[in-house]
Amino acid sequence: MNRNAVTLQTCTTASETAAAIRSGVSTAEAEVREAKVRIAANEEQIGAWQHLNWELATRQARAIDRAGPQGALAGVPVGIKDIIDTFDQPSENGTEADRGRMADADATAVARLRAAGAVILGKTVTTECACGASRGTRNPHDLQRTPGGSSSGSAAAVAAGMVPLALGTQTAGSVIRPAAFCGVWAMIPSLGAVPCSGVLKLSETLDHVGAFANSPMDLALAVDAMSGDDGSDPYAMGQAPTRLVAALAGKLAPPRLAFLRGPTWGEMEPECAARYEQLADRLGAAPRDMGDEFADIVDAHQTVMFAEIGHNMWPLMVRAGPLLSGMMRGRLVKGRNIGADDYLYMRARIYAMRMKFADVMSDYDAAITAPTPGEAPLGLESTGSRLLTLAWTTLGVPAVNVPGMTGPHGLPLGVQVVGRRGDDASVLRAAAWLGQTLAGM
Amino acid sequence: MNRNAVTLQTCTTASETAAAIRSGVSTAEAEVREAKVRIAANEEQIGAWQHLNWELATRQARAIDRAGPQGALAGVPVGIKDIIDTFDQPSENGTEADRGRMADADATAVARLRAAGAVILGKTVTTECACGASRGTRNPHDLQRTPGGSSSGSAAAVAAGMVPLALGTQTAGSVIRPAAFCGVWAMIPSLGAVPCSGVLKLSETLDHVGAFANSPMDLALAVDAMSGDDGSDPYAMGQAPTRLVAALAGKLAPPRLAFLRGPTWGEMEPECAARYEQLADRLGAAPRDMGDEFADIVDAHQTVMFAEIGHNMWPLMVRAGPLLSGMMRGRLVKGRNIGADDYLYMRARIYAMRMKFADVMSDYDAAITAPTPGEAPLGLESTGSRLLTLAWTTLGVPAVNVPGMTGPHGLPLGVQVVGRRGDDASVLRAAAWLGQTLAGM
Repeated sequence: MNRNAVTLQTCTTASETAAAIRSGVSTAEAEVREAKVRIAANEEQIGAWQHLNWELATRQARAIDRAGPQGALAGVPVGIKDIIDTFDQPSENGTEADRGRMADADATAVARLRAAGAVILGKTVTTECACGASRGTRNPHDLQRTPGGSSSGSAAAVAAGMVPLALGTQTAGSVIRPAAFCGVWAMIPSLGAVPCSGVLKLSETLDHVGAFANSPMDLALAVDAMSGDDGSDPYAMGQAPTRLVAALAGKLAPPRLAFLRGPTWGEMEPECAARYEQLADRLGAAPRDMGDEFADIVDAHQTVMFAEIGHNMWPLMVRAGPLLSGMMRGRLVKGRNIGADDYLYMRARIYAMRMKFADVMSDYDAAITAPTPGEAPLGLESTGSRLLTLAWTTLGVPAVNVPGMTGPHGLPLGVQVVGRRGDDASVLRAAAWLGQTLAGM
Repeated sequence: MNRNAVTLQTCTTASETAAAIRSGVSTAEAEVREAKVRIAANEEQIGAWQHLNWELATRQARAIDRAGPQGALAGVPVGIKDIIDTFDQPSENGTEADRGRMADADATAVARLRAAGAVILGKTVTTECACGASRGTRNPHDLQRTPGGSSSGSAAAVAAGMVPLALGTQTAGSVIRPAAFCGVWAMIPSLGAVPCSGVLKLSETLDHVGAFANSPMDLALAVDAMSGDDGSDPYAMGQAPTRLVAALAGKLAPPRLAFLRGPTWGEMEPECAARYEQLADRLGAAPRDMGDEFADIVDAHQTVMFAEIGHNMWPLMVRAGPLLSGMMRGRLVKGRNIGADDYLYMRARIYAMRMKFADVMSDYDAAITAPTPGEAPLGLESTGSRLLTLAWTTLGVPAVNVPGMTGPHGLPLGVQVVGRRGDDASVLRAAAWLGQTLAGM
């Protein structure tokens, strides 16, 4: 074991926890108590939590126990990234500018988790507004390394066994990257599948809500619970709820799997690149060349994201500029100076690439690729490169991180599984199959 | 009869024409021949057509007759607005800059009409690029008046009985306004229902393809044929084809009808406003106040539309600026100078208003409102005010013009029927019911 690692706690999965409570083997209140012990064991070293409220959590749990557990997640303790609103605990968006901020209402994602019986334990650390400076959370596998970001606390909390389930958001790589660095399962469903109402708006063209967990079934439970048009997020209009739990039922057949190096493969650390090439070979995943159509995807992402962030966050700049980091202020000014003409050109490019990607995937159920250039880098200043997740986020396609590989330093490497937009079921099935296959290798 | 009017020709509806051909009473070739006679009668005075090719039309018709009529529109002669691409006739976009331009392929809407058996007669006059200067088409009911625009030729051709069906496009009011001025049926389905692939792109947030005809059933046939995801227009992604023909089957029950004055009612000519108020009263349509949420809808529309037009048409400006009108050049420069920050603010406002409008309509099947401030104005310079159609276009909701009222000068006034986005069936049913009701008044 890495001498810089903490002792990871053992935490049953969300499905197992809910089943234990339903069958009377455990109670929601007992699960809160145990989560408290697991968090206390490592929180000082890791710093995954922005806010915890044991009294509130216990009261939620008692209400569930008293009423009898209902809902697929009844009694499961969950962590919520701090840019996702909760009505009963602060939502501080990772910035001093919002210290103590109480939202009027739960985000749709949180309200729906509560409706499914989840116990909202607390808020997890995010980088500054999920697009600025890193805020000190450490990787449970090596305290000298970043857990990745911006959903740093959620990834670290699940990796350390503190909670079986936590929410994150991704606009470039903020769910899949930390999941890969921390060695946990995570999923962002197709763009729009989970409404972003009540989530700090960075970039409406790119924002996704996602989840971290210890099994594909837990991801299915969480995404199914959160998904579908809420009558409030225009980008989720007309979206039907996902049916991922049903998609995982039965024996998983080997998927028709492509190997996509993608437009940013040049960023890979060579030694890690070779591991993915070998994996593709062993799985029989055919390398699929994406052609020239996606060559400007990084530029397109950056232009659209920064223009939208510059617009959406300018009121924050006006209200509290001096409380933001220099990095953040610089990004906002840069974004706000982008012209509509450049913005519209790149948005049209993104939409064209989204259409084109359906062709790329036409003969496959899903594709595997790398989620990061390599293992989590040393240091807490940077949360690592987002260049390997950025293309798939831009395309709005479902993405899953499957843990189970290790890198040259013995730290986690993930496998990213992506697929067609709207075909979340095939992607999660392929990921679950891959998880079983990696375990047997 | 107005002494400035032409003698309107008699033209059977598209449904009747197709039925006559199917039953052997007529042939596609005979229908082309008769269309030629009807067009020859008035085209010199009206100027509805940009391009006609009788040889091509006759060959299309003979092929249909030889193979046996197939498809719901088999043998029906159709006019296509000149900004909608056709592979076999020029698509000149209403500008000298594109004189003689031959598109590589049919627009999706045209290809689908052909697949349904329609005979593409020719291209109808549009204003300059559908957003610039008027181009001389006259109103068949009064040659000194505009037919409206930008789909001037399609509206006038159907009104004069030249063809039973013609296509138009609408970004502000370019289908519903000319239909109202010319006294014909027209529909724009929900935003995205008909793909815009192969149509000159003005403003992707607002562009709709629509149709002009002489009955609601003909609109249903055309829209059903053209609608549904084509794998090419990102704004039509995931859209199922409409089923409007089915929606019109059986006896039409009175709809739950609201009367919406809308945010621009102040633009109405008082004498005409009174006629709509009276109509609402007689129909028992309850006035529905939309509240303050839509107060900035004109500003939002103008900012988003001009920014997108400025971006999308800038290559045309660079290539052929001197061939564009001063009005058009001015609009492009103005649009291109809009900042992404203003653009994004107004786009978010539009999306918020789209969500909100579902609440406005929650207790109603459809709503009636005015499509124009009054009758077609005198002169050909302007195509009239688009302020009464603009709000509904911005909301992306289905809209139908129902002819049958007349104004103070004995010229056509339309009734605009709108409803919930995606609920094209309820809107067209309500419009069809209203058409029957107006005929009985």
